[in-house]
Amino acid sequence: MAKTKGRVTLPSEGGFLEETKEIMGRWGADALRDSDGTKLPEEIKALDAAVYTTYFVARGHNEFAKGHMEECQQLYLMSPRVTSVDETVEIPFMEGYFNQQVVPDYFHDQKRWWEVMDRTSGETVAPENWTVNQERDVVVVNNARPFHEYTVSFLVYAIWDPTQMYNHITNSWGDKPHEIPFDVRQPASGQFAKEYLVQWLKDNPRTDVVRFTTFFYHFTLVFNDQAKEKFVDWFGYGATVSVKALEEFEQEYGYRLRPEDIVDNGYYNSTFRVPTRHYLDYMDFVQRFVAKKARELVDLVHEAGREAMMFLGDNWIGTEPYGKYFPEIGLDAVVGSVGGGATLRLISDIPGVRYTEGRFLPYFFPDTFHEGNDPCVEARENWLGARRALMRKPVDRIGYGGYLSLAYKFPAFVDYIEQVTDEFREIYGNIVGCRPYCGLKVAVLNCWGQLRAWQAFMVAHALWYKQTYSYFGVLESLSGASVDVVFLSFEDIRETGVPKDVDVIINAGAAGTAFSGGHQWLDAKVVAAIRQFVWQGGGFVGIGEPTAAHFGGRCFQLADVLGVDQELGFSLSTDKYFTSGQNIHFLKEDRKGPFDFGEGIKNVYALSKDTEIVEFSDGEVHISAHRYGKGRGVYLAGLPYSYENTRLLIRSLYYSAGQEANMKRWFAQNPLCEVHAYPDRGLYAIVNNSGEPQHTLAYDGKGHACGLTLEGGQVLWKTIGS
Amino acid sequence: MAKTKGRVTLPSEGGFLEETKEIMGRWGADALRDSDGTKLPEEIKALDAAVYTTYFVARGHNEFAKGHMEECQQLYLMSPRVTSVDETVEIPFMEGYFNQQVVPDYFHDQKRWWEVMDRTSGETVAPENWTVNQERDVVVVNNARPFHEYTVSFLVYAIWDPTQMYNHITNSWGDKPHEIPFDVRQPASGQFAKEYLVQWLKDNPRTDVVRFTTFFYHFTLVFNDQAKEKFVDWFGYGATVSVKALEEFEQEYGYRLRPEDIVDNGYYNSTFRVPTRHYLDYMDFVQRFVAKKARELVDLVHEAGREAMMFLGDNWIGTEPYGKYFPEIGLDAVVGSVGGGATLRLISDIPGVRYTEGRFLPYFFPDTFHEGNDPCVEARENWLGARRALMRKPVDRIGYGGYLSLAYKFPAFVDYIEQVTDEFREIYGNIVGCRPYCGLKVAVLNCWGQLRAWQAFMVAHALWYKQTYSYFGVLESLSGASVDVVFLSFEDIRETGVPKDVDVIINAGAAGTAFSGGHQWLDAKVVAAIRQFVWQGGGFVGIGEPTAAHFGGRCFQLADVLGVDQELGFSLSTDKYFTSGQNIHFLKEDRKGPFDFGEGIKNVYALSKDTEIVEFSDGEVHISAHRYGKGRGVYLAGLPYSYENTRLLIRSLYYSAGQEANMKRWFAQNPLCEVHAYPDRGLYAIVNNSGEPQHTLAYDGKGHACGLTLEGGQVLWKTIGS
Repeated sequence: MAKTKGRVTLPSEGGFLEETKEIMGRWGADALRDSDGTKLPEEIKALDAAVYTTYFVARGHNEFAKGHMEECQQLYLMSPRVTSVDETVEIPFMEGYFNQQVVPDYFHDQKRWWEVMDRTSGETVAPENWTVNQERDVVVVNNARPFHEYTVSFLVYAIWDPTQMYNHITNSWGDKPHEIPFDVRQPASGQFAKEYLVQWLKDNPRTDVVRFTTFFYHFTLVFNDQAKEKFVDWFGYGATVSVKALEEFEQEYGYRLRPEDIVDNGYYNSTFRVPTRHYLDYMDFVQRFVAKKARELVDLVHEAGREAMMFLGDNWIGTEPYGKYFPEIGLDAVVGSVGGGATLRLISDIPGVRYTEGRFLPYFFPDTFHEGNDPCVEARENWLGARRALMRKPVDRIGYGGYLSLAYKFPAFVDYIEQVTDEFREIYGNIVGCRPYCGLKVAVLNCWGQLRAWQAFMVAHALWYKQTYSYFGVLESLSGASVDVVFLSFEDIRETGVPKDVDVIINAGAAGTAFSGGHQWLDAKVVAAIRQFVWQGGGFVGIGEPTAAHFGGRCFQLADVLGVDQELGFSLSTDKYFTSGQNIHFLKEDRKGPFDFGEGIKNVYALSKDTEIVEFSDGEVHISAHRYGKGRGVYLAGLPYSYENTRLLIRSLYYSAGQEANMKRWFAQNPLCEVHAYPDRGLYAIVNNSGEPQHTLAYDGKGHACGLTLEGGQVLWKTIGS
Repeated sequence: MAKTKGRVTLPSEGGFLEETKEIMGRWGADALRDSDGTKLPEEIKALDAAVYTTYFVARGHNEFAKGHMEECQQLYLMSPRVTSVDETVEIPFMEGYFNQQVVPDYFHDQKRWWEVMDRTSGETVAPENWTVNQERDVVVVNNARPFHEYTVSFLVYAIWDPTQMYNHITNSWGDKPHEIPFDVRQPASGQFAKEYLVQWLKDNPRTDVVRFTTFFYHFTLVFNDQAKEKFVDWFGYGATVSVKALEEFEQEYGYRLRPEDIVDNGYYNSTFRVPTRHYLDYMDFVQRFVAKKARELVDLVHEAGREAMMFLGDNWIGTEPYGKYFPEIGLDAVVGSVGGGATLRLISDIPGVRYTEGRFLPYFFPDTFHEGNDPCVEARENWLGARRALMRKPVDRIGYGGYLSLAYKFPAFVDYIEQVTDEFREIYGNIVGCRPYCGLKVAVLNCWGQLRAWQAFMVAHALWYKQTYSYFGVLESLSGASVDVVFLSFEDIRETGVPKDVDVIINAGAAGTAFSGGHQWLDAKVVAAIRQFVWQGGGFVGIGEPTAAHFGGRCFQLADVLGVDQELGFSLSTDKYFTSGQNIHFLKEDRKGPFDFGEGIKNVYALSKDTEIVEFSDGEVHISAHRYGKGRGVYLAGLPYSYENTRLLIRSLYYSAGQEANMKRWFAQNPLCEVHAYPDRGLYAIVNNSGEPQHTLAYDGKGHACGLTLEGGQVLWKTIGS
């Protein structure tokens, strides 16, 4: 096979010219980038490659920022809860916050912009009943009710950019200046952002691609008084707030947001919260502003004849790539970090840009690239994990970050990435622009729908949480499966019903969260629409605590569809007779080992003998199926990611839709393998997702099987019909 | 020791005179009783013993009942849920019910007394939109909303007494007549109940004690169409309902109860439901009626010179022995079944009667008394389990039930019970009428308070449920512990605050249930009162999901007191740093093996470094303590009953109240042993609760210890100060 070239971005650095050239050759790189802590020297910029340059809009300009501290970014924070033991209570509201990151906003009228809450009664304390002591950063509440808990919601200025703060503290940067984040909504900052970019473009003629990291507002990241992370929400709008924004909001929407609309009991409208109307309005307000402002910068980039690329992360709030206004920004490209299949799809599915790029792992940093460690392990895991998603919808480019000089010291790693980049180009060449075979169309239903496509169950980007891994596996499984995936919100169902072409709806998550749906399930319109969908032949797969919202004698509002409900303790008086699992069932046909439901869900029981109990243990149902009209409901107690659980999900999807007879088309019998077909190209690939050789039956599009053995990690391309 | 006599009740039967005499002598029995299926012949009634005779008020008189079928007892039942697939839906409401137990009430106007519910919207369907087809037992709903679920709440007549039905079916009694339950609220039945008793007393001159089994209304027990139990609630008021009762209720209370007030979404106001105001009103209404009517019968018994004893069970609804009206019934005695310590205390603590009697296990039935089984095993377990409760508050008599002739075939059993009865009389003689030493006063707080003292967490009497055993252990532990136990309701707290003499409040149960408290925790008055109590030095022990009611950013409303809260998924964005348990802590000082929390609770986390984490595993806190003012909150994830967990609870109580220095008074260092002291009598007992010899340090009232070894099951009496 002839050596291919292109679609690969390499980090480089000073004093590393010859090696850069060598690796460019071996990996076929056609773009070079700087990284945090590195700059590309002119000699490298002069190589035959596009040059990406990192660009910060709203930080890294302290000379400007220091002159406009009243334009710093702001946040609403909630103080600690303080219990009144008599009628006066002092709330040291800054306690627990990091005073190098945030300082109280004593500039604006506190009586107008702050709020004291009685958290025990849920009531607001009248402003005449509290005063602010600015010397001590304390709010004093008078006429307090004894043994009630009080909090203050207060405005602060952010005086340190969270990402720089994190890097600064983590890497002990000492007296390196703290980068001050400013708010482009403010007049001087908005002006500065544009003027600086114009000049910067002039000053950086070799830059082909301006890599915005990112635009204006960082996701919510607040540190504590130990200079450690206190609160992190990758989706949080906390740092978009300002008095100016709130005033403009009121003017536009005709109502005023309360601090509580942002503070939200201290949850700060986490992505796990069922969003309120007010918060949705506010998000929309911010998104429109960000899109408009970002467009101005992108236009400047284009006017200078360069490309504009956005890094998906850091200051990305308001630029949600699946949001309504994202295409208006006019970006050429988005680049993001790839942790696995779902994060790859999060990037590769982004609409409205010319190309996407995935930054693969490991980052070339000493934590991985040190004596005695084999970086190939992480690289292989990352590649094989993301590759199955790539086979469904490829990013247009891949790249790496960090110190190339570090990676260069590991020849086996350089070899392995050479192989990866070749394989990427081969896959890309074979499938780009072509729709892979999808056996089913699957809709993931939650409060966020398309806006947070592939982003459900995340707190911090791609980090593991005990409370989420049992659900995140659903996305990871789907990311590389031979099904079409769409994301629906409850609002979508209300407005237009279940789309006609959807075969299966998945609802997964913990009770009360935005992903299960909480009180959205009390909307009879939603419930009836989904019942009708299943009755007429659709599938419904509920995972964890699907449709959970205790009402009307049900915990799961679609218990009738699922055939199971969760015992909350109220119906213990009703005998539960259906406790024996079926020995043989389509859902577990090729399961060899024990099931793994992750955290699992307690006390789920079958409603009647019509429920097919597939797994019953510890007095609970963990897998079941139930016919409902022409369709079926399938229940799974949890789905942490594994190849075996991907298979369980696939079986659940086909079974729920009553299409189990069609499952074995472009299908591998061995759960460690998958088949991806591209009928438009007349090609299909049999893929071994594991690192070891595997034997499998591979089924073609007509369901004919042939046996074959694949090497570890192999992708075997075949011509359809051959 | 001289042979003692008395305080023991023996079952006997025909043709067993000499053996009865022999066992009476050996066990010291001074009362004889009949049982289900046995009658005492005259020769046995003539023995020197009181004679108990079982008496049924509201069943077993079919000659009367058949002539007054319109006076049968009634229930409201909820039909199966039926989904409308178009605008008409038929609800076969009797489906799933046992037509030998209940028949629809077509006598009263269905439009007035029945209710059709749209369970999807929660709305009532207007009567003009449905009709009843009496031939087919179907309700037809018109103008239904597609894909909504509908139910009918309908009145039935009960035509078979549930206890007799159970025995009839279980023992295959074939064509033995079904006993029809009639309702003494109705005119003819009320009259009959009195007249029959008058005559019966005349016909049974040898009866000394009329053993009412019980009075008027059976706890809710409904069978399904397979003639198996469908719904059971030992506390359920289901069978107290009638059109007459509802009309009288409306007249007295000035508002009308809806069927839904009784049906309650199909939960039928289970004891696990936080009771509604309407249901509490209705209970009070029934209790007053039952007390008044029962008093009439008890008066007749007394006028005939006999004693009136009530069996605690079966038709006991409205006679709750801890209820306000119970003393008005004027009973001489209550007898109940003893399954362990808590059920013993349930009987022995009953106020307002001259004496109590516990029926111990095993029942002399072939299920235990058969070739190859040793009935001593169950007897010993039952005796040792209940004895520690007896040491706190003894029943006045013990007894057995079943076929004495069966028990007689097991000489080792007869020997063992001889020993038990002697030991019972020794204990009783030593402690009767005297208050044992109590190191603390403990209040168990739930929605029911005193009304259901010792009855929390029960579905069917003393049966094990997966969802309850982790809480029921609290009562079982307390039943034999050296602490004073009272039961408080939220209403008590609202009305009079926390009683001054209470040292510790326990709140245990699953979120949302009557035992945890559900929305009662949203009452700021309750929350503030308990905070103040702890702040001033009281203890608060929360078990499972204590104070759980998601509001104001908290799952546990007393998270501030407990120092822990439960992560529901909304606060994942907040970092949880406090994850390491303390190696040494008062709460686990003498714990040798691993902890057992039963079902456990997921995702409980410490709020701050001030929380003392005692057990942390699987990413969760399972035991913790937290100082709050002068008091403490202690959290336990669950407390299934064991001697080790009893010790953990005792430690939690003392620690929470800040009285850990006082724990080792009248205290055994070995958790399998306990010390009970009776200062008024100058006596104390060191008890080995296990069947094996145990060595322990025993602490006296001043905290001085001495070591000693006890035989298996031994009670060692000592004189204080000797």
